[in-house]
Amino acid sequence: MKEIYDIAVVPGDGIGPEVSKAAVRVLTEALGSTAVLRFAEYPAGAELFQRTGDSFPAATFEACRSADAILHGAAGLPGVVHPDGTEAGLDFTLGLRSKLDLYANVRPIKLWPGVTSPLRGREVGDIDYVIVRENSEGLYAARGSGVFLRGEVAMDPLVQTRKGIERIVRFAFELARTRGGAPADGRRRVTCCDKANVLRSYALFREIFSEVARGYPDVEAEYALVDAMTLHLVRQPSHYDVIVTENMFGDIISDLGAATVGGMGMAPSAELGDGNGFFQASHGSAPDISGKGIANPYGTVLAGAMMLDWLGRRHGDRRLLDAARRIELAVHDALAQRNALSGDIGGTMGSADITGILCANLAPAA
Amino acid sequence: MKEIYDIAVVPGDGIGPEVSKAAVRVLTEALGSTAVLRFAEYPAGAELFQRTGDSFPAATFEACRSADAILHGAAGLPGVVHPDGTEAGLDFTLGLRSKLDLYANVRPIKLWPGVTSPLRGREVGDIDYVIVRENSEGLYAARGSGVFLRGEVAMDPLVQTRKGIERIVRFAFELARTRGGAPADGRRRVTCCDKANVLRSYALFREIFSEVARGYPDVEAEYALVDAMTLHLVRQPSHYDVIVTENMFGDIISDLGAATVGGMGMAPSAELGDGNGFFQASHGSAPDISGKGIANPYGTVLAGAMMLDWLGRRHGDRRLLDAARRIELAVHDALAQRNALSGDIGGTMGSADITGILCANLAPAA
Ligand SMILES: CC(C)[C@H](C(=O)O)[C@@H](O)C(=O)O
Ligand SMILES: CC(C)[C@H](C(=O)O)[C@@H](O)C(=O)O
Repeated sequence: MKEIYDIAVVPGDGIGPEVSKAAVRVLTEALGSTAVLRFAEYPAGAELFQRTGDSFPAATFEACRSADAILHGAAGLPGVVHPDGTEAGLDFTLGLRSKLDLYANVRPIKLWPGVTSPLRGREVGDIDYVIVRENSEGLYAARGSGVFLRGEVAMDPLVQTRKGIERIVRFAFELARTRGGAPADGRRRVTCCDKANVLRSYALFREIFSEVARGYPDVEAEYALVDAMTLHLVRQPSHYDVIVTENMFGDIISDLGAATVGGMGMAPSAELGDGNGFFQASHGSAPDISGKGIANPYGTVLAGAMMLDWLGRRHGDRRLLDAARRIELAVHDALAQRNALSGDIGGTMGSADITGILCANLAPAA
Repeated sequence: MKEIYDIAVVPGDGIGPEVSKAAVRVLTEALGSTAVLRFAEYPAGAELFQRTGDSFPAATFEACRSADAILHGAAGLPGVVHPDGTEAGLDFTLGLRSKLDLYANVRPIKLWPGVTSPLRGREVGDIDYVIVRENSEGLYAARGSGVFLRGEVAMDPLVQTRKGIERIVRFAFELARTRGGAPADGRRRVTCCDKANVLRSYALFREIFSEVARGYPDVEAEYALVDAMTLHLVRQPSHYDVIVTENMFGDIISDLGAATVGGMGMAPSAELGDGNGFFQASHGSAPDISGKGIANPYGTVLAGAMMLDWLGRRHGDRRLLDAARRIELAVHDALAQRNALSGDIGGTMGSADITGILCANLAPAA
């Protein structure tokens, strides 16, 4: 346990500054003072790139590396691209992932009360699982490398390693043992999502998954091909507990999962390495609505709660664990009782009002 | 126009023989005689592999290559795998794709009357788009190649070429001009689904898409990242008309699309090259229900109708075009008026009864 935790806040582009400000306010309120978390802001992103030619300054990286945790708003602006056509605004997120080896991307998919699922008949309690996305290799390993010949042929290698697969699968099984939610039938389970029937790299993923699974006889292990997985997430989401998958597949199915619980605005994301933790909402920078005060702050607030939970476990700090739990309760009450819904989830309330309700809802520290 | 068309039928594994039989019966009935289509059956698949060690005999390939079209049931049995862990039952489909250069995989996603979408509030007319999956390169190009070192590292190259991208994008725009259905707003549109913000091969796909699109000013061209695409297909499916995408992404989003219209049992698939056409339902061999007479025949019947439509256009044969149209009307009536629903789409009717209703429904040839 530390007396003070240093949090590097990177507001970023578009609605990033609005939602990160909301989260900082709720986190501060939950801890009852500004004395436990010390927030400091650092620049990165597409707008910075446009202004300075540098999307991710060395000083920002250094601050992130040495902080106890990193909280991000969002990054990216349309059309701000590198010569090879990839987006400059993504350098921060993708750079942090690789430089800090944030190999576990944890994306809880949960239907909150008051939010209507686009899936017929799905109610609160029916959708509550976690996607564990491998975040350090897979198809993303190709970014910035690969072969590109005269605009005639492009090749991006999908790379999967024993080390990378082993640690992410182990992470998923440990999470299944400890996480709060449970699938409808109450059984702990980890689903391996791959395309082992077609590609050897995915067959390797599946093989190592099976090896690791044998060390967790208390947790059910099962398999789903990625194409079938999309079907299952639409037709029987209540079956799922923890799903583990390769980087690109995780990118895809986590957006699908988010779609079933109200969209990207309700989807927090934690990217964890052995030494660092990086937290943000799954949504992008939504420049079309930035500055209007209507951005949905829940994703970033929930990412903030994940940050407190992660820090609390890591440092054995009950103050943080308690604050995380109270933020989740405040979200629950705001949605279930106060009808605090932004436009993207069927309401009309602005960010500041939602944030105010969250702060008012926070039960006093135990 | 030919007098007789040779159709190579490959029943395959599991429910494959049942559903292909149903389709052959409906096709024959629609043409009013056995004199227009000449069906001949050829073996391939996992069960054959178990028995003979050969999943895709040379004679079957030769028959497929020289036929006017190929109709497939389904293939694959769990656990019947090659030494590298990939499935033997898939050799037929994947082998045909590459040997006959079937580069365009056309997957209509349509909500039929009488079938309940798992999406809240979606009714007939709300979901009617086509996914055009590039079927000859992309991540699937790696099958059987790639690098595999001591079970420590596996690498599968994702390869995209100018030639491959150009022809599939052109195919998609031509389809948008000619296909029957239309999105809710009535505008013809092709959506390019990629991950151009992260990988150069997808940036190349997008770049070539934009080039080709300039040749079709009457068709709207737009872009969606694959992760966001999953969200859109759940939240605003009525927006879509034709979606074109790389092989692996097409595999994934076409199952998602199918999920929104009643599942794989309602999803036909056509795989087209410049010289050959290969038709099947998108579903697998479902060995758990094979031989019980309860398999859903609609997917294969609709694939059969796509076959007639393709042959009819190719050979300028109105008999075939007319039969294709009447099969679609028969499906419509069976679902809308006769409640002919199999178990997977919420009913209790067996395959034979549904097939009988389809045959009875077939309006007489014009
Ligand atoms: C912004 C983008 C680089 C990122 C990704 O592709 O990983 C995003 O989609 C995500 O899911 O975190
Ligand atoms: C069976 C399998 C090889 C195939 C694929 O992955 O392409 C299937 O999922 C499909 O969509 O046609």
